[in-house]
Amino acid sequence: MTDIVTYKPSPDELAYTFGGREPVRRVRPGTVVELYTEDCFGGRVRTVDDLPSVVCEFPYLNPVTGPFHVEGAEPGDTLAVHFVSITPARDWAVSSTFPHFGALTGTHTTATLHPPLDELVWRYDVDLAAGRVRYHARRGDYSVEMPLDPMHGTAGVAPGAFESRMTIVPDVHGGNMDTPELRAGVTAYFGVNVPGALFALGDGHCRQGDGEVCGTGVEAAMNTVIILDLIKGVPTPTPRLETDAALMSIGSARPLEDAYRMSQHDLVTWTAALAGLDELDAYQLVSQAGQAPVGNVCDPNYTMLARLEKRYLPTAEIYAGTHDRLRGVAGSLHS
Amino acid sequence: MTDIVTYKPSPDELAYTFGGREPVRRVRPGTVVELYTEDCFGGRVRTVDDLPSVVCEFPYLNPVTGPFHVEGAEPGDTLAVHFVSITPARDWAVSSTFPHFGALTGTHTTATLHPPLDELVWRYDVDLAAGRVRYHARRGDYSVEMPLDPMHGTAGVAPGAFESRMTIVPDVHGGNMDTPELRAGVTAYFGVNVPGALFALGDGHCRQGDGEVCGTGVEAAMNTVIILDLIKGVPTPTPRLETDAALMSIGSARPLEDAYRMSQHDLVTWTAALAGLDELDAYQLVSQAGQAPVGNVCDPNYTMLARLEKRYLPTAEIYAGTHDRLRGVAGSLHS
Amino acid sequence: MTDIVTYKPSPDELAYTFGGREPVRRVRPGTVVELYTEDCFGGRVRTVDDLPSVVCEFPYLNPVTGPFHVEGAEPGDTLAVHFVSITPARDWAVSSTFPHFGALTGTHTTATLHPPLDELVWRYDVDLAAGRVRYHARRGDYSVEMPLDPMHGTAGVAPGAFESRMTIVPDVHGGNMDTPELRAGVTAYFGVNVPGALFALGDGHCRQGDGEVCGTGVEAAMNTVIILDLIKGVPTPTPRLETDAALMSIGSARPLEDAYRMSQHDLVTWTAALAGLDELDAYQLVSQAGQAPVGNVCDPNYTMLARLEKRYLPTAEIYAGTHDRLRGVAGSLHS
Amino acid sequence: MTDIVTYKPSPDELAYTFGGREPVRRVRPGTVVELYTEDCFGGRVRTVDDLPSVVCEFPYLNPVTGPFHVEGAEPGDTLAVHFVSITPARDWAVSSTFPHFGALTGTHTTATLHPPLDELVWRYDVDLAAGRVRYHARRGDYSVEMPLDPMHGTAGVAPGAFESRMTIVPDVHGGNMDTPELRAGVTAYFGVNVPGALFALGDGHCRQGDGEVCGTGVEAAMNTVIILDLIKGVPTPTPRLETDAALMSIGSARPLEDAYRMSQHDLVTWTAALAGLDELDAYQLVSQAGQAPVGNVCDPNYTMLARLEKRYLPTAEIYAGTHDRLRGVAGSLHS
Repeated sequence: MTDIVTYKPSPDELAYTFGGREPVRRVRPGTVVELYTEDCFGGRVRTVDDLPSVVCEFPYLNPVTGPFHVEGAEPGDTLAVHFVSITPARDWAVSSTFPHFGALTGTHTTATLHPPLDELVWRYDVDLAAGRVRYHARRGDYSVEMPLDPMHGTAGVAPGAFESRMTIVPDVHGGNMDTPELRAGVTAYFGVNVPGALFALGDGHCRQGDGEVCGTGVEAAMNTVIILDLIKGVPTPTPRLETDAALMSIGSARPLEDAYRMSQHDLVTWTAALAGLDELDAYQLVSQAGQAPVGNVCDPNYTMLARLEKRYLPTAEIYAGTHDRLRGVAGSLHS
Repeated sequence: MTDIVTYKPSPDELAYTFGGREPVRRVRPGTVVELYTEDCFGGRVRTVDDLPSVVCEFPYLNPVTGPFHVEGAEPGDTLAVHFVSITPARDWAVSSTFPHFGALTGTHTTATLHPPLDELVWRYDVDLAAGRVRYHARRGDYSVEMPLDPMHGTAGVAPGAFESRMTIVPDVHGGNMDTPELRAGVTAYFGVNVPGALFALGDGHCRQGDGEVCGTGVEAAMNTVIILDLIKGVPTPTPRLETDAALMSIGSARPLEDAYRMSQHDLVTWTAALAGLDELDAYQLVSQAGQAPVGNVCDPNYTMLARLEKRYLPTAEIYAGTHDRLRGVAGSLHS
Repeated sequence: MTDIVTYKPSPDELAYTFGGREPVRRVRPGTVVELYTEDCFGGRVRTVDDLPSVVCEFPYLNPVTGPFHVEGAEPGDTLAVHFVSITPARDWAVSSTFPHFGALTGTHTTATLHPPLDELVWRYDVDLAAGRVRYHARRGDYSVEMPLDPMHGTAGVAPGAFESRMTIVPDVHGGNMDTPELRAGVTAYFGVNVPGALFALGDGHCRQGDGEVCGTGVEAAMNTVIILDLIKGVPTPTPRLETDAALMSIGSARPLEDAYRMSQHDLVTWTAALAGLDELDAYQLVSQAGQAPVGNVCDPNYTMLARLEKRYLPTAEIYAGTHDRLRGVAGSLHS
Repeated sequence: MTDIVTYKPSPDELAYTFGGREPVRRVRPGTVVELYTEDCFGGRVRTVDDLPSVVCEFPYLNPVTGPFHVEGAEPGDTLAVHFVSITPARDWAVSSTFPHFGALTGTHTTATLHPPLDELVWRYDVDLAAGRVRYHARRGDYSVEMPLDPMHGTAGVAPGAFESRMTIVPDVHGGNMDTPELRAGVTAYFGVNVPGALFALGDGHCRQGDGEVCGTGVEAAMNTVIILDLIKGVPTPTPRLETDAALMSIGSARPLEDAYRMSQHDLVTWTAALAGLDELDAYQLVSQAGQAPVGNVCDPNYTMLARLEKRYLPTAEIYAGTHDRLRGVAGSLHS
């Protein structure tokens, strides 16, 4: 019998950190959670005239829904989060430049003497039925359609060491990784740092380019269904993803090569463990067969993924079959 | 009437720099060149017992074939190089770790007090007919097949400003970009810096993972057919690639975020020019539709690509149709 | 009439974060605080046989004393902390390598496949009267004396945005900046993020080289006297230091050039404001007259300082003369 | 009997690369060379109305005087260059911003969509007798004096591996290190890569702040006296400096932490060799006693130095006493 919990936060229930918050719900492992996430602007940017720097107030940015306390989760365990579906909640979405934020601008840390680039908002049409979003240029009448590919930019658990972190920061607890790989059909794994794990989710994008170069995706509120599950006694050093076809390790750091190193290092050592390979043999295998999807190159830490097709690890037991099991549960929900 | 030139360098004709070399051949724009490239080890690593640090001698590493002088090429022009075919020349290929080289080791610049990792060689079986390479673990009997996906790691022209650079360095003249996107069917564009452009090519890989994390791909000698063409009066600020489906801009720098920035900056400004878009509108379009294939994260500069599907630029005139034209020439060669 | 508060924490009163803690004392602006700080190892490393990775337990590292609530401090104000004296509390101090920590080793983020360097402890003799510490090699009988130059590696206030951060992290709230410039005679300025500011202090070093290359200084418990003062209505964007001779702005970030940029950017804009200069004129002045003391190149963020002699700003009113006033108070304490 | 050579290049004799040039003079080891260096603008920026981007033409920037062939110098040897005196040749000097160059601006590699900062020239008065330069603000009448502290930004030998590099690039062959430590009284050591070493010198600064944050120092033509000497059979892996009081190792790389790592790594291993210390003992000694002067944070590679007082190495034989010997020769020249 599967527990199903439905949760739509009121505005004052939204969270702006991982850690330092009381849970909004307590659930048992295996619970299906149907939840709503607001967009990164708190839903305040609705037209091209709603400038984020005017209508939003720091630090009330990038709200997340949660946290959810998973019963029995303890440091040293792994939280498995299967994404059953991610559905844009509106027929529009927005993106913007933001002063001193993004990859092709001076920023708070890459400090320059330039004045900020113009702050502009783009409003996208979202066509769920057709699976499309439509871009409209602001200066001219250029317009193109792109495939809808919904994802969550921000997902994670409470960090360890008594920390709490702004939701905009990605790190080993997850957070604002902003990877297009976090889409429906994926199982995400997070190491548990505090009792209950305290998972939270937000920052839906209808789609996003690699690196989120201007600093924002096609930002949208989402109706999302996940399954929260628990793997006892198995630690996970950095966030990982599993699809039907592939494994991915996620690294978040600066400079970007360190995000690359962290993700590749985890994939190499994980591959060695899964395949019974010597570490240098796994290094070689990943060097030739591995991929490196880019997450974000704009947030306080940058994010890269290291990806390996599961067919290169035919005998691997991955988290005791958790992904396949949760896929099965997800399938049963649709029937 | 198409000129066809065939060139297989003798060992003492191999080049180890871009720039500072006399051309090996002078060709007219539009010439088809059938050439041979030696592998990055100069063909000296043939078994797992041939350690690169023993059998190779610095700076005689990563030889290139060329340079080719293209008649009429002048600074301010663009050299177009269409890759007709890239065919491994042997039924084996090799890869290795190398002391203090690679992404998951201390290096000359990321200097640490660690002794080097073990130097190991892996020998791959190459099955041209089946389109496969086979990996064998060194420590254990693990073995898997991977798809053959031949590419050149090193391609470029002489740099400007009277420089000559080791072939292992990627920069705005091209060089050792080590991107798997440089495969058959692609047209590469390089800005010309010196009369004749002085194009050279080498470092074939049967395939390579993103970033070439251990420092080497599946290294192989190649029989490669290219067409060298010239676009007069059109500058190209950084190497670019065009396929039937997409445009790519290449950035090479450290830290890795600067390679990302350079590639995205060129793609954004190029997109603005091709589509008649405002620069910020192009920034937004690339932010949502763009991809960021990773080249190398191990060489003296790191390399990233920014990629946009041509369907988002339906009206664009790209280098006056050069790619389609060269595709046509290439097709006629097979008949 | 000056308030004087004395506080020596019991071991269970030590704090391991900035933010997320109740204050240990509430003081009025202008209060002199005589406090004790434990060393970064919590005092558990006393001999060369006490390996930090064995005797210390994560996250109980780098304890700080505090936080102190300064009455009336609100976001937007500046906390001024004058360091009257910093006195080693014992006649010995320790330093060590630590697995995967430091600048010349692979780390958690600069992830490599190397095993850690040897973990070694060095025990220094501290001669307060002579103003000297003595280094002894571990492998051989080499020994030299160095000047005592006591400083605090860790000082700061609670961060904003509901965050709490491990004490080992330096950022705009202060934290583990590990700069030898934070010595007696200096006034440090911190922007206030939360009511009461919540200042805490720790990580005393008898001395430290630039960058703290191995990851630790000459670590020591300290008896330290500070004056906590408040400047209402004046914000401070990043930590700053003032001495009798110079101003300094502190930047903490990765990569290291961003720490440089942040510190120089703050010094340039501060100089422009203090001297009534155009920003580019201030940029030029700092470019020729400025210095860049290196803080740490080993912590989660790296730290650099930008320094300008006050003689280049002869008419400047710096925080309304706070430093000179606190110097006066400090002088009166000795009499 | 000391050879003395005097050389003032005509404009068409100036060099713009290290490597790829014929020597202007051949000298015996021990020769005193009295030479003239033009400023980085080739002397074309003489007033605040001479904008570098207008009056200078790429790649004719940052000219050097030389190269000098030192007889008998072979790869594996060390070239010792003692700086006897560095004297500004005019009673004025200039500095400037330059489009997309400097630390607080978007650049070619840290590519942003910002338009360049304003290009401004500052003209300094140089008072040799008083040992002062005078800064004048461009926008307002602010003016201050700073001490004259003449140095050369660019010094080095031909690189190895058949490379030639623009003079603006610092690397292991030297080049545009832009460190204020390269002043009179210093002996610089360079590893020899090609027969004759091919030493060249340029880019004099009347003074410079740490990091040369705006991209240029107080640029001046110089009359400089050096002694070129040779240490046979002793390799030098990266440029080093020696003063009467200290040793310095120089690292040039990006990101800046790698320049730090390279310089510290060389100093640690050199210290171990000089003092007969274990490498980790040397690591510890440098961690507590070492300094890290900042060179440039604006050039194609960034430069940092690692510095250790010689008093910590009382028994060290440093390049067989070369510095003291050349100091003696220099002293004899003045008499």
